[in-house]
Amino acid sequence: MSKKVLIVGGVAGGASTAARLRRLDETAEIIMFERGEYISFANCGLPYYIGGTIEERDALLVQTPEGMSQRFKIDVRVQNEVLSIDREKKTVNVRDHKTGNLYDENYDVLVLSPGSTPLKPPIPGIDAPNIFTLWNIPDVDRIKDYVDRLKPKRAAVIGGGFIGLEMAENFHDLGVNVSVIEMADQVMAPVDYEMAQIVHRHLKDKKVDLYLGDGVKTFEYNNGVTKVTLSSGKVVEADVVMLSIGIRPQSELAKGAGLSLNQRGGIVVDEHLKTSDPSIYAIGDAVEVVEFVKGGKAMIPLAGPANKQGRICADNIAGRNTTYKGTQGTSVAKVFDLTVSASGVNEKTLKRDGLEYGKDYYYALVHPKSNAGYYPGAIPMTMKLIFGMDGKIFGVQNVGYEGVEKRVDVVATALRLGGTIYDLTELELAYAPPYSSAKDPVNMAGYVAENILNGTTTPFHWFELENKSEDTIILDVRDEVERDMGYIEDSVNIPLDQLRERMGELDKSKTYVAYCAIGVRGYVAERILKQNGFEHVKNFMGGYTTYSCVFC
Amino acid sequence: MSKKVLIVGGVAGGASTAARLRRLDETAEIIMFERGEYISFANCGLPYYIGGTIEERDALLVQTPEGMSQRFKIDVRVQNEVLSIDREKKTVNVRDHKTGNLYDENYDVLVLSPGSTPLKPPIPGIDAPNIFTLWNIPDVDRIKDYVDRLKPKRAAVIGGGFIGLEMAENFHDLGVNVSVIEMADQVMAPVDYEMAQIVHRHLKDKKVDLYLGDGVKTFEYNNGVTKVTLSSGKVVEADVVMLSIGIRPQSELAKGAGLSLNQRGGIVVDEHLKTSDPSIYAIGDAVEVVEFVKGGKAMIPLAGPANKQGRICADNIAGRNTTYKGTQGTSVAKVFDLTVSASGVNEKTLKRDGLEYGKDYYYALVHPKSNAGYYPGAIPMTMKLIFGMDGKIFGVQNVGYEGVEKRVDVVATALRLGGTIYDLTELELAYAPPYSSAKDPVNMAGYVAENILNGTTTPFHWFELENKSEDTIILDVRDEVERDMGYIEDSVNIPLDQLRERMGELDKSKTYVAYCAIGVRGYVAERILKQNGFEHVKNFMGGYTTYSCVFC
Ligand SMILES: Cc1cc2nc3c(=O)[nH]c(=O)nc-3n(C[C@H](O)[C@H](O)[C@H](O)COP(=O)(O)OP(=O)(O)OC[C@H]3O[C@@H](n4cnc5c(N)ncnc54)[C@H](O)[C@@H]3O)c2cc1C
Ligand SMILES: Cc1cc2nc3c(=O)[nH]c(=O)nc-3n(C[C@H](O)[C@H](O)[C@H](O)COP(=O)(O)OP(=O)(O)OC[C@H]3O[C@@H](n4cnc5c(N)ncnc54)[C@H](O)[C@@H]3O)c2cc1C
Ligand SMILES: CC(C)(COP(=O)(O)OP(=O)(O)OC[C@H]1O[C@@H](n2cnc3c(N)ncnc32)[C@H](O)[C@@H]1OP(=O)(O)O)[C@@H](O)C(=O)NCCC(=O)NCCS
Ligand SMILES: CC(C)(COP(=O)(O)OP(=O)(O)OC[C@H]1O[C@@H](n2cnc3c(N)ncnc32)[C@H](O)[C@@H]1OP(=O)(O)O)[C@@H](O)C(=O)NCCC(=O)NCCS
Repeated sequence: MSKKVLIVGGVAGGASTAARLRRLDETAEIIMFERGEYISFANCGLPYYIGGTIEERDALLVQTPEGMSQRFKIDVRVQNEVLSIDREKKTVNVRDHKTGNLYDENYDVLVLSPGSTPLKPPIPGIDAPNIFTLWNIPDVDRIKDYVDRLKPKRAAVIGGGFIGLEMAENFHDLGVNVSVIEMADQVMAPVDYEMAQIVHRHLKDKKVDLYLGDGVKTFEYNNGVTKVTLSSGKVVEADVVMLSIGIRPQSELAKGAGLSLNQRGGIVVDEHLKTSDPSIYAIGDAVEVVEFVKGGKAMIPLAGPANKQGRICADNIAGRNTTYKGTQGTSVAKVFDLTVSASGVNEKTLKRDGLEYGKDYYYALVHPKSNAGYYPGAIPMTMKLIFGMDGKIFGVQNVGYEGVEKRVDVVATALRLGGTIYDLTELELAYAPPYSSAKDPVNMAGYVAENILNGTTTPFHWFELENKSEDTIILDVRDEVERDMGYIEDSVNIPLDQLRERMGELDKSKTYVAYCAIGVRGYVAERILKQNGFEHVKNFMGGYTTYSCVFC
Repeated sequence: MSKKVLIVGGVAGGASTAARLRRLDETAEIIMFERGEYISFANCGLPYYIGGTIEERDALLVQTPEGMSQRFKIDVRVQNEVLSIDREKKTVNVRDHKTGNLYDENYDVLVLSPGSTPLKPPIPGIDAPNIFTLWNIPDVDRIKDYVDRLKPKRAAVIGGGFIGLEMAENFHDLGVNVSVIEMADQVMAPVDYEMAQIVHRHLKDKKVDLYLGDGVKTFEYNNGVTKVTLSSGKVVEADVVMLSIGIRPQSELAKGAGLSLNQRGGIVVDEHLKTSDPSIYAIGDAVEVVEFVKGGKAMIPLAGPANKQGRICADNIAGRNTTYKGTQGTSVAKVFDLTVSASGVNEKTLKRDGLEYGKDYYYALVHPKSNAGYYPGAIPMTMKLIFGMDGKIFGVQNVGYEGVEKRVDVVATALRLGGTIYDLTELELAYAPPYSSAKDPVNMAGYVAENILNGTTTPFHWFELENKSEDTIILDVRDEVERDMGYIEDSVNIPLDQLRERMGELDKSKTYVAYCAIGVRGYVAERILKQNGFEHVKNFMGGYTTYSCVFC
C-alpha cells in the first residue's frame, strides 16, 4: 500500500527528503509544502549574489517547483504554509497564501524541515527600512534592490558570524565601507580567540571597522541613514544595516503539536530522526542533534547535516534502517582572502563545560605551509588541534589562505572514525610540491600533539605569559636579524645554532620558555636544553607568529 | 652510554632520521654519509627548477651540510660513499671521494636510506650525451645547463609516470615541443585506464605528442639530435631526451652485507624497520613495505613514507617502540592544469591478483563538482572509488582541476582508519559554496557505492559495452539538445522528465542501460523503470562524460 508523506519545508532538508524518497519509492504520495515562493534555493549562496560574485539570480534556484514535480513526481505546493498539526487525526492544516484558503491534508508520515529564522531582538529602531536580515530569496531580492537603487556608501554588519562576515566581504566587493559590530570579544564563534585574532587583523587590513565586545543599544533611522548606538556609547552611521546576530529554530509548528522540544526550542529526535510522535520525523536546523565529540545535545544549523538528514529520513520512511550519528559542526567560511574552518569542539566550549587545559585536554598550535616551502605559493596556515589526554581528537581549527579546509576535512574524517592524534601522525596524505609537504600539516600537528602527550615537549601558551613566574625567562632563539621585526619584551636572544656553545650564559635553576618564529626552532632549543641539565624548559607554541597575532 | 649511529644516505629518509634522533638524544654520536655533494635536497622539486617555476637553485637545498651539522650536531660527510658493511665487526668501509681515501667506521646502529636509482636498460644508444635521467642535484644541473645552453626545440620523454609527465610539463613551459613515449597503454600507472584517458586527452590538448603502447627500440645520436626509434617503427627526433621509465632500489650495500632482500631487490624490514640484522635499520625507497590495503608486500617509493619512516626509525633507535604499519601509496601529481591523485589499490592491481569485478569488488565512478555548482569555479572531477563486497575501501582515484587531492586525502584517511564506504556517506566535511557542496564529492561517491552494494542501482561500466547482449538497449535520458554534443551509438532517447509518460514505448523484456551526462539522471531513470515493472535496468556509470573520455 502506498504511503502518503507530507513534507513541511522545501529547501535543504525538505527537498532532499523528497528527492531521495521518490528514488526509493515510486508509489508514495509525496506533498511538499513551502511557505515561500521558492524551493531548493541556495541559502548559502545568497551573500554572493548581493556582492555580484554569483551573477545570475537563477543560479540560486537549484530546483524549481516545476522541475521538482516533473522529475520526482512531487506535489510541490509553494506559498502553502502548514499552520498546525492534528496528531490524533494525522492531518495538517494549511493556508494557501495564493488564494487565502485554508485546508486540511492527511498523512501517514509527516516530515518537518522548517529550518530556522534570524533573530531580531526588540532593540529600539530595529524595524528601520534599511535594516535587513538575510535568509531567503525575498530577503536577497530586497537587499539587492536596496543596494542597487540607493548605492549605500556605509554598511553596518551586526554580528560577526559567518553570514555577517560573508556579507561584510560582499558589501566591500561593492565598494561599500563596512563596520562589523560584535558583542563577543571575537568574530567567528567556531574558532577560539587566538585564531579569531588572525581574522580580526585581516578584516582591519581590508579596512573593515571592527567593534568587538560591543552590542547595539539603539538604532535611529533618519532619511536613509541609520545611526547605530553601541553599549559603549560609540556611534556608527550606516546607509544599510545587516542584522546577523544568530538564529532560532522554527519550531512553533512542532510546539503547537505538543512534540518534545529542548530548552532552546529544538525539536527532539531519536537516531532515526523521529520526533516524540512515531509518525513524525524532523530534520535540519530545527532539530536537536547529538554533538558527535562529547555526546551531549546541541543545535548545529548547517547545510551538510540538513541534506544528509534528509536522505536518512527518506531511507527510514522507505523502510530502510538508517541512523544519524550526530553532528561534528564541521564548517568553513571564506572571509575575504582568508579561509576559516573548524570541526569538533573548540576550547571555549571545553572550558565552558568545566574542562581544564593540561588536566583534561591539551592543544597543539602549528603554522605549517600550505605546500612545499620551495615551491611557489607556500603560505603558512594556523592550525589548532585540541585533544584529550588519551589522544582522542576533540577538535581542529584552521585559518589561512590555501589548503585550509583540506586539513580540517582530513582531521574531521579521522575524528568521525574515532581516530586519535597518533593516527594523525601516520596518515599518508597526497604529496607533491604544489600540494603539500612530505609531512603534511596534519601529520605535523599530530607530531606536536604526540610530543606534548609523551612529554617530549612542554608547551607554553600565549595565555600563560600574563601569569608567568618571576624566574621564567623568555629565550628568543631566532637569528638576530629576526628581532628587527619585533620580539617578546624582556626576552633574551641566543640564536638556536649558537645554543650549544652559549648554554653557559643560562641559569639551570630558571625556567626557560624558548620561542622562534613558529615553534620549530623553539622546540629544538627546548630539546637541547632539557638534555643538558635544564629541568624547566618549555616551547612557546606557535612562536612569535602566534604571539604577535594575539598581542599586536 | 651514548650510542654511535651511522646513517647511509643524507636526503629524505636519512636526514629525517638524523634530525629526529638528535632531538630525542643529545648524546648519540651521529654520522651521516652521503655519496653526493648535497644532503636534504628537494628531489620532488627538481623538475620545476628546470622549467623555471622554482627560480632559485638554493630553494632546492632544504638543508646544507653546515646547517645540519650546526643545528643537529650531526657529523655530515658528503662525498663519502659507504662501500661495504662488516656486520661481524659492526663497521662500514667508506670512500671519501674528496681525498680518494678509504676508511672504516664502527657503529652500534646502522641506518640505510640509500634510496633508489633510475632504470637505464641496455637500449642501443642510451649513453648519448643528450639523454638524461633526473634524480639529484648534479642531474638537474646537467639538464638545466644543457637546456639553457642549447635551447632544445624538441624533447622526448620516455616513460609516462609522474616524473616523466612533470618533465613534459616543464619542458612545455620552456616552449619545447614534447613527445611522451610510454610502453603501457596508459600514462600514470597509479590510476586505471579510464582515468588515464582524461590525462591523455589533456596532454593532447597541450599539444604533447603521445605514443602509447610503444617502447623504445633504439636511440641514435647525431649532431645534437637523438633519433628515437620505437618498437612500432615510428621515429621521434629530439634535441633532448628524458629517461623516466622507472627506478630500482639501491640495495647493493645491503645485498653485499647479506641482508634479506626481496625478489625486486627491496630490503626486507620488520614493523620497527629493522632489517634481518638487529643492528641495522633500513627505510625509504630501498625497503619493501607492507601494502596497507591488501596486507602483502610491495615497493612504494614515495617521499611521505620515506620521511615518516625516518622519524619512526629514529624513535626506535632512541628506545621508543614505534611501528610502521604499511604504505597505501597515496600520491598526487600536477600534470599541466590537471591534478591526478590516488590512494590504495587500483583495479589493475586487483585484477592482476585475480580479483573479479562484481564478485570481489565494485567501483563507483562519479563526476561531482569541485565546489557548489552555483558558485564560480565549480569544475567537475572524475572520482573512482573501489571497494569490497563488505564496503571496505580498496582505493580511490581522482582526476580534475580543483580540490582533487583534497578528496583523495579524505578517503585515504578513512582507508587508513579502516573505514568503509558507509562511513564515507556519513563524513561531515567542510561546506561553504567556494569549497564544496552540502554533499561533498566524497559523500557522493559513498552514496553511489552504497547504492551499488545494496542493489538500489545496478552499475553498467564502459567495458561492458563491447560484450553487451543483443537485447540490451542503451537509453539516453538526456534532453534532446544534449545529443547534439554527441551520443552513444544506437541509443534511444527519452529525456528523463518524459520517462514516466513515455514508458509505454519501452519493452519490459529488454535490458535497459540508462545514461545521461554524468550518471545522476541515468540513476533516477533506472529507479523509475525498476519500480515500474522493468526488471533489467542498469545505470551507465559516469554517463556520457565517461563514455566520451574512454572512447573518443
Ligand atoms: C545566508 C546564509 C548562508 C549560509 N551559508 C552556509 C554555509 O556556507 N554552509 C552551511 O553549512 N550552511 C550555511 N547556511 C545554513 C543552511 O542554509 C541551513 O543550515 C540549511 O538550509 C537548513 O536546512 P533546513 O531544511 O533545516 O532549513 P531551510 O533550508 O531553511 O528550509 C526551511 C524551509 O521551510 C519553510 N517553512 C518553515 N516553516 C514552514 C511551514 N510552517 N510551512 C511551510 N513551509 C515552512 C521555510 O520557508 C524554508 O524555506 C547558510 C544560511 C544562510 C541563510
Ligand atoms: C624528480 C623526482 C620527483 C619526485 N617527486 C615526488 C613527489 O612529488 N612525491 C613523492 O612522494 N615522492 C617524489 N619523489 C620520490 C622521493 O623523492 C623519494 O621517494 C624519496 O626521496 C626517497 O627517500 P630515500 O631517503 O629513500 O632516498 P633519497 O632521498 O633518494 O636519498 C638517498 C641518498 O642516499 C645516497 N646514497 C645511496 N647509497 C649510498 C652509499 N652507499 N653511501 C652514501 N650515500 C649513499 C644517495 O646519494 C642519495 O642522496 C620524487 C623523486 C624524484 C627524483
Ligand atoms: C536539489 C535537491 C532537491 C537535490 O537533491 P538530491 O537529488 O537528493 O541530490 P543530488 O542532485 O545531489 O543527487 C544526489 C543523488 O544522485 C546520486 N548520484 C550522484 N552522482 C551520481 C553518479 N555519478 N551516478 C549515479 N548516481 C549518482 C547520489 O547517489 C544521490 O542519490 P541517492 O541519495 O539516492 O543515493 C536538493 O539538494 C536541494 O534542494 N538543494 C538546494 C537547497 C540546499 O541544499 N541548500 C543548502 C545548501 S546551499
Ligand atoms: C630538512 C630535514 C632534515 C628536516 O627534518 P625534520 O627536522 O625532521 O623536519 P621538520 O623541519 O619538518 O621539523 C619537524 C619537527 O618539528 C616539529 N614541529 C613542527 N612544527 C612545530 C611547531 N609549530 N611547534 C613545535 N614543534 C613543531 C615536529 O614535531 C617535528 O619534530 P619531531 O619529529 O621531533 O616530532 C628533512 O625534512 C629533509 O632532509 N628534507 C629534504 C629532503 C626530502 O625530504 N626530500 C623529499 C621530499 S622533496
